[in-house]
Parts: sequence; structure tokens; C-alpha cells
Amino acid sequence: MSTLRKGIPSNAKKVFGGKIFEVWQWEQKMFDGNTAIFERLRRPNTAQVIAVVGDKILAQTEEQPDSMQPFSSLPGGRCDGDEDPLVAAKRELLEETGYVSDDWVLWKEVNPVSKIEWTVYTFVARNCVFKQEPHVDSGEKITSKLISFDDFLILSDDPSFYSPELVSHILRLRLNKQERYEFRQMLFGKQSIS
Amino acid sequence: MSTLRKGIPSNAKKVFGGKIFEVWQWEQKMFDGNTAIFERLRRPNTAQVIAVVGDKILAQTEEQPDSMQPFSSLPGGRCDGDEDPLVAAKRELLEETGYVSDDWVLWKEVNPVSKIEWTVYTFVARNCVFKQEPHVDSGEKITSKLISFDDFLILSDDPSFYSPELVSHILRLRLNKQERYEFRQMLFGKQSIS
Repeated sequence: MSTLRKGIPSNAKKVFGGKIFEVWQWEQKMFDGNTAIFERLRRPNTAQVIAVVGDKILAQTEEQPDSMQPFSSLPGGRCDGDEDPLVAAKRELLEETGYVSDDWVLWKEVNPVSKIEWTVYTFVARNCVFKQEPHVDSGEKITSKLISFDDFLILSDDPSFYSPELVSHILRLRLNKQERYEFRQMLFGKQSIS
Repeated sequence: MSTLRKGIPSNAKKVFGGKIFEVWQWEQKMFDGNTAIFERLRRPNTAQVIAVVGDKILAQTEEQPDSMQPFSSLPGGRCDGDEDPLVAAKRELLEETGYVSDDWVLWKEVNPVSKIEWTVYTFVARNCVFKQEPHVDSGEKITSKLISFDDFLILSDDPSFYSPELVSHILRLRLNKQERYEFRQMLFGKQSIS
């Protein structure tokens, strides 16, 4: 979806800064030569992790203080300030699940909304090992579980799955046998493919 | 994706109103009893149209003053104020393509981003007929063309397709023969199915 990203032009001014979102505006020249005020947002990027433990993947059930019901998610969260997405991914994986890995690959980089400067980075963390008890803040309740590769694919049918920007990528894996084969190989290595 | 929609709680206050986006904040009670300021946005809903002309579908190539390159889209746009989504869909179809229909069905209602109160309505307009020359404003350059049902399905592979929230629904049609059959029947009627 990268081609949809328009970015915030250099002549734009920040007209509001909130807790998460910044609002930027600029004078845009229109096709007829007149101008109009255009608006776009910026928010912190997010990082999420497809964490591989043996022949399984770490999935989560999560509650937030303002959500009606639990939802399915992958480990992840916002980048703090200028934090590098990979550093954020490692931090969130450790905080939320207690697992670490020294074998990381960036799988997808998606800009979900054309009017928002916001990138979602999806990493694969291979050969994860358990290091310590998870420790989440007071804004999260998280339960982790290990699921099979097939159950990971089926997450794309779960209406509560909190990664809408990943759903189409997972559906493409279900549609395309070769892509699915290569993705599975990236996660688990050659020897595990039957 | 409707279950991801959290909405803006009744105790929230509007802290900024921009050209498109409103920013709302409230004091949220956390799981440990403390409170934190939470933030969410509201923006006008949008309506888009799968417009059926004979055995074809209307697709567009569109340019906007701030976009680097042309992109693929369906007829559609923002609801004006409290405008009903169906009224907006009819208005945008006529403005952008010159076509009208008296046979409308709501196909999908999607909330693309959990932190934004924003619904994208996708309508099917069956048996469209050409009424008048299109008339778009100075913020759009639009070329319409008629594409086949198969080419419509392949729009989900076009990285410039400006309806990311529709991509996963179209991919599901490609995955599921029965769903695809029923959708095609909804568009074109029983007699056209071979």
C-alpha cells in the first residue's frame, strides 16, 4: 500500500498536537489554480511481531481499559518517540510475552491510511526463547498462546483480529501456494517443510 | 472489522476541530485504578460505489492535487455533514461518472481504523444508466472506464487501488467460490451466471 502514502508536504504547519495524533495543514494549489486548506495527520509508527517458537507462532488475547471485549492480536505496540521499529518490536515482544530472539526479519511495511503519516512494521522473530515473565503496563491485559501455522492463517477470518493491515497479506498467503510455501520456509526454515 | 470499533465515550471532550478530523480526549480508568488521558478521532464517513453497467463495472483512474501519480478508485467520496451515506453515494456517482441507478444495495460497512470514528460504506448500484456529463470539482481529475468482473477482482492486486478496506473483501471473493458466485449474482442477476 506504500504508493498510497502521500506524506505531509514541507510547507505544512502543525496546527494541533495531541497525546497520539498531530494535525498538519497547508495551502494546496488546486487543478484550477485556486487554493484550499488540506489536512493530514501524523502519529507514532507501530511495530508488531510474528514470533516463532519451535514449530508454533505466538498469538495473544488482549484487553484494553476502553475495549468492550477481548480481541486477538500479535505482540507489538507504538514506537516511543524516535525509537527504531526493530528496537520497539524487541521491547514489546519481551514486555508482552517474555520471549527474545536474535534472528529478526522485516516482513511487511504498511501505511494503512492515506491521510495519516503512520507506518506499521511487521517483523518475523525466528527461534524465540523464553527469557522472563512478561510485564505489561496498566493499559493492557494480555494472554499469550502458541498456535499452529494453519491457525495463524485462520486469524484472517477472526473479526476481532487487531491487525486489519495484515489481513490482506495473510489472505494472499492463503490464495497463493508458492507465496505460502516461501513464507513458511522463512518462519521455520527448510527442514520443517513437508 | 466492526468489532474493533470502540467509539468515543460520552465523557470525551473535543479538543480540536480541523478541516476533516476532530480530536477527542477523555480520562480513562486503567486496570490498576489510575487514570490516563485517552485520545480518539472522528472524521466524516465515506461512501463508495460498485456501479454495474450491463455486464461491466465502473472503475476510475484518479488524480488529486497532492498525489504524486494517478491511482485506481471506485466512484465515491465524503458524506457532507450529516448526509446519509446512500445519498452521498448517489451524489458522488452522478458527479464523478454521470451515471444513475434506482437499484441500490449496501454491500459492506467497514470501520478501517480502531482509533477513528469513521465508517466506509460500499454500495452496489445495479443497472446503472448514463444521465449526464460528469462534473468534478477542482480537487479531482477522474477518468472512468468499464471493466469486467474478473478485472474487478484483480483490482485487489493493484498497489494503487485507493480502497484498502475493500481489498480483503475482494480477496475473500477470490478465495471462496460460493461467495464469489453469490456476489456476482447480486451484481448482475441470475441470468448472467454461466
